[in-house]
Amino acid sequence: MSVAQDASFPGERVVPEETPVALTYNGSTHAVMMASPSDLEDFAIGFSLSEGIIHDPADLLSMEMVEHDLGCEIRMWLSDRSGSSYQMRRRALAGPVGCGLCGVESLAEATRPVQTVTGSLRVHPGAVKIAMTDLSDAQRLNREARAIHAAAFWRPSEGVIAIREDVGRHNALDKLAGALARASEPGSDGLVLLTSRVSLEMVQKTARMGASILVAVSAPTALAVRVAESCGITLVAVARGDAFEVFTHPDRIDFHPA
Amino acid sequence: MSVAQDASFPGERVVPEETPVALTYNGSTHAVMMASPSDLEDFAIGFSLSEGIIHDPADLLSMEMVEHDLGCEIRMWLSDRSGSSYQMRRRALAGPVGCGLCGVESLAEATRPVQTVTGSLRVHPGAVKIAMTDLSDAQRLNREARAIHAAAFWRPSEGVIAIREDVGRHNALDKLAGALARASEPGSDGLVLLTSRVSLEMVQKTARMGASILVAVSAPTALAVRVAESCGITLVAVARGDAFEVFTHPDRIDFHPA
Repeated sequence: MSVAQDASFPGERVVPEETPVALTYNGSTHAVMMASPSDLEDFAIGFSLSEGIIHDPADLLSMEMVEHDLGCEIRMWLSDRSGSSYQMRRRALAGPVGCGLCGVESLAEATRPVQTVTGSLRVHPGAVKIAMTDLSDAQRLNREARAIHAAAFWRPSEGVIAIREDVGRHNALDKLAGALARASEPGSDGLVLLTSRVSLEMVQKTARMGASILVAVSAPTALAVRVAESCGITLVAVARGDAFEVFTHPDRIDFHPA
Repeated sequence: MSVAQDASFPGERVVPEETPVALTYNGSTHAVMMASPSDLEDFAIGFSLSEGIIHDPADLLSMEMVEHDLGCEIRMWLSDRSGSSYQMRRRALAGPVGCGLCGVESLAEATRPVQTVTGSLRVHPGAVKIAMTDLSDAQRLNREARAIHAAAFWRPSEGVIAIREDVGRHNALDKLAGALARASEPGSDGLVLLTSRVSLEMVQKTARMGASILVAVSAPTALAVRVAESCGITLVAVARGDAFEVFTHPDRIDFHPA
């Protein structure tokens, strides 16, 4: 908690925490992410899936959380299969200067096509509004400190079955992906809900979860729209109050029920 | 431009572009960033400075922009001095699996202390409000497509002397840092203004610019507040309408003018 001084009157504001989280595989750091220090096991698994380092939670032989003064370390050990491909990937990236990935190769890697989703789920416009109200109601951390993003998974018959929050929108979605994977919950029969904007990576992560409908409070980028179009995702955004806009594959939103 | 379908009526919405930008040094990709495709020279220099790869724009011997179908490649060649230290850094990061940076080392790297700022600039509360109005007026891209962040540099005597916009808030601030460095404009005599939230990295980038007052529309994280406190930055946030809150070093905001 921080005590803040307002321009007109001294106030008090609870600000969200943010912790450096080092993700290590087989003893080497892959990345240090700034994250809200909650649901870090989900984060580690979701991040590993999103990055394509593992394809299944079972590819992680072990995971250990180590608290340091400077942040948190998540030590993961990979199965032989994932470990071998990870080692090859690191060697390709590393090498002497001049032999790493060149620009074109790395652009191809960043924009590599994700799987096409084919979910047959359809929902009424009213369900989208209910889902976004449920999302808002479920944002526990955000109610305490504001300025925290959330990603949730919502099923028409069950409502929000999982919600994860983070100061970073990418982290929130990775945490959600990890939570669903750990619970062996399929992504195909529900909506992914986001409080944030939708950039390319949010669409890629959603596709990897196998979810076919993505609904976000804020606007998408043009690239996010193009990729959602090409991989079969129904992208609903600017979902505020009673209105929303459907950017791609509107056939999954049933505007004219029988 | 995307044609979107509203829940109640078909609409049209201009969505912001987003392009994969591969940043290569001496022939190898350092990172692929998703960015708004404007002011990419500023971005490349600001990013290189923020990452500590160069310490001065003169450390870049050359820079070449190459357009690809998949995105943009920025090819940079480093001076001998920067090239040598970059090569050592890559070797330390790379190596065989198991010999890269371990978790503790990488946490230390991510949270390494930034320079302490010691600017003597003081401003009245009214100036903060004027600055944020100037920022809003100067957001050209955002007026067209919304959902785009901006970072600006504002001097009491001159108003906004530079503004850079991007779908990513980190990119916007890197572009601003690059623009100031290229123009040899010191950061010490003005305010850095942000439309976004303030996380650790936004404070680190501001300190590296030598700016002592950071004003943001949205809230900071607790870690951002702690680092601003320790490195001498006056952190003003939640600056909306007539109100704002001062989180650290309030002595630079002159609440009681003579």
